[in-house]
Amino acid sequence: MTVQAHSDLDEDPAFALHRGGKLRVESSVEVNDHEGLALAYTPGVARVCSAIADTPELVDTYTWKSKVVAVVTDGSAVLGLGDIGPEASLPVMEGKSLLFKRFGDIDSVPIALDCTDVDGIVETVVRMAPSFGGINLEDISAPRCFEVERRLRERLDIPVFHDDQHGTAIVVLAALRNAARLTGRTLGDLRAVVSGAGASGLAVTRMLINGGIGDIAVADSKGIIHQGRGGLNEAKTGIAAISNRADLRGPIETALEGADVFIGLSSGQVPEEVVATMAKDAIICAMANPTPEIHPDVAQKYAAVVATGRSDFPNQINNVLAFPGVFRGALDVRATDITENMKIAAADALADLVGDALAPDYIIPSSFDERVVPAIAAAVAAQARADGVARL
Amino acid sequence: MTVQAHSDLDEDPAFALHRGGKLRVESSVEVNDHEGLALAYTPGVARVCSAIADTPELVDTYTWKSKVVAVVTDGSAVLGLGDIGPEASLPVMEGKSLLFKRFGDIDSVPIALDCTDVDGIVETVVRMAPSFGGINLEDISAPRCFEVERRLRERLDIPVFHDDQHGTAIVVLAALRNAARLTGRTLGDLRAVVSGAGASGLAVTRMLINGGIGDIAVADSKGIIHQGRGGLNEAKTGIAAISNRADLRGPIETALEGADVFIGLSSGQVPEEVVATMAKDAIICAMANPTPEIHPDVAQKYAAVVATGRSDFPNQINNVLAFPGVFRGALDVRATDITENMKIAAADALADLVGDALAPDYIIPSSFDERVVPAIAAAVAAQARADGVARL
Repeated sequence: MTVQAHSDLDEDPAFALHRGGKLRVESSVEVNDHEGLALAYTPGVARVCSAIADTPELVDTYTWKSKVVAVVTDGSAVLGLGDIGPEASLPVMEGKSLLFKRFGDIDSVPIALDCTDVDGIVETVVRMAPSFGGINLEDISAPRCFEVERRLRERLDIPVFHDDQHGTAIVVLAALRNAARLTGRTLGDLRAVVSGAGASGLAVTRMLINGGIGDIAVADSKGIIHQGRGGLNEAKTGIAAISNRADLRGPIETALEGADVFIGLSSGQVPEEVVATMAKDAIICAMANPTPEIHPDVAQKYAAVVATGRSDFPNQINNVLAFPGVFRGALDVRATDITENMKIAAADALADLVGDALAPDYIIPSSFDERVVPAIAAAVAAQARADGVARL
Repeated sequence: MTVQAHSDLDEDPAFALHRGGKLRVESSVEVNDHEGLALAYTPGVARVCSAIADTPELVDTYTWKSKVVAVVTDGSAVLGLGDIGPEASLPVMEGKSLLFKRFGDIDSVPIALDCTDVDGIVETVVRMAPSFGGINLEDISAPRCFEVERRLRERLDIPVFHDDQHGTAIVVLAALRNAARLTGRTLGDLRAVVSGAGASGLAVTRMLINGGIGDIAVADSKGIIHQGRGGLNEAKTGIAAISNRADLRGPIETALEGADVFIGLSSGQVPEEVVATMAKDAIICAMANPTPEIHPDVAQKYAAVVATGRSDFPNQINNVLAFPGVFRGALDVRATDITENMKIAAADALADLVGDALAPDYIIPSSFDERVVPAIAAAVAAQARADGVARL
């Protein structure tokens, strides 16, 4: 491809904006003479190093470690693009770092790994962990992502958070709490159907169960996941054991009949005649991007509340509502883990911000609502202390 | 240690300056509304990712990859402090990033690894390499550092540079070229003695041999390294084969008698009576920090030129004279390697800046001389093209 062809790409404003990348590193210390060098570098720096060697926790005070998050991917499940590899995933990882900074005032560094086996990813992250205060896993395909996260949480004493799972789950839980309240119900009154059994689908399901949903069934491309279904991987077997108490079987259409909630986390389209079979006052969260599983104009005809992943419709379910505040809160108290309780506290704090303004087109705050990050951060920090995982 | 004790540390200005760390990440793109999000993040970012997946070299244009250097250490040989581990090494790595930015306008990220075996370090760096435009190895102990660098250069198509070796070697070669010129000699006229057979001692020796030094011998704690000496590791055996053509044996004192050049890269002190045995118009580079192997006031009595590693004496031999310009030049042309010729070109460019101002107290420019980085960068970039390792 020639330079000319590159310039053509820049006619797309997304390319023009990405030219040269979206991040830079700055030093927070000025060095303009030999005295400055002698403090920021040798010989002064040696005293700081020695102090940390003697008293390891000083690393949190005298380096940026406790402030900086690694955004780690293997490029295997990037947006809806799939396994495009580490280099091609970098624009998304830089975007994540940009959002960390913009919304959470958090420094972060994209680390796209040329390695897709679980052992390799885990070992690599463990080895580089001394440099970071937290690990945000991103766009790692299921089911490997579950084991990567589980093993890293076991081995590291810094927060490890797979945003595709938990960021989505936190925002969906908050949205559903408010949608239930709006329609005079509680989570326990709702029967939900999740379309998509990838990282986000399974995490949303687990979190809604922990949050007290009435019943919830997950469907993948082969239909409803139930106990005893052949060929399930470990993650789906785990979900089968705790979801779908009604033991529904068959295609997703079967589950949607009479269901209160649709949660779309795949790109599979749902026909209007199937939407029409859902319960009265249905809640539809159709989050596929750019094309929702059910178009909002169609969903509106049958549902009391409609949410999507798009910013050009009301009620955008966007991870950026969760991860900046979750990490801000976790880093603020130097949490050693992000517990399930902390995630639920984040969802509750997010839901509570809507307050009396609750309406069918306002079940969740805007990403640019400046109250969001402080509220979530405070809730997450308080819960970290309550759960005994805070170091400050 | 209590908070009170931490505050006490801050009475040392080096600690006060390090509080909170020395780096931050900034985004170079503003996102203030949903339209901005849609370009910098989804859905716009997906078009950039897809373009890179189709045309991999676009990663250099549309991400920060080609601009950002990983500063990688295992914390095993930090300054004169030794093996203090990854966390305690972080202040030095952040300092290095600060200097990259301040002097070379280069973004870099400290990565201190919890892993000291060669295989582990190499695999980890190879796996994270898709995110970076260059690798600066730092404070990895000899002889492991030699193999780490050799294997990474083989496996990666981005510049890999162990600054403790080559940064020092470049500046010493530049200093010696000018010191020789000042005293009416060429490098080929000089017989040098290097004290210290660690990373920098061996690299300086190799580079001076490549630069055409008359003869050079290296001494470690057991005396002069010569062919056939028992118990040499692979790196020292390699040096024995190409250095010390006079086949000197015994303690370093034997080599210093009549020597033209002393290059101190250990902390071993050299007594005045031994200095007195060096040749007329001796050149003494005593670079141990903070205590030079020979105090400059003593060295001055016997030598025509004296250099140290300290900023409070003339002729400071400081790596910061080399690595920012070397990486600036290598990144500017997206070099796939940093060749020996590129290092020699850097040394020549650095030496040439002194020009007619050459004097016993001015054989090397100041670190704050603004001509240094552009001159070295231009020389390194030109040599990269000549060597066929430039991609731009």
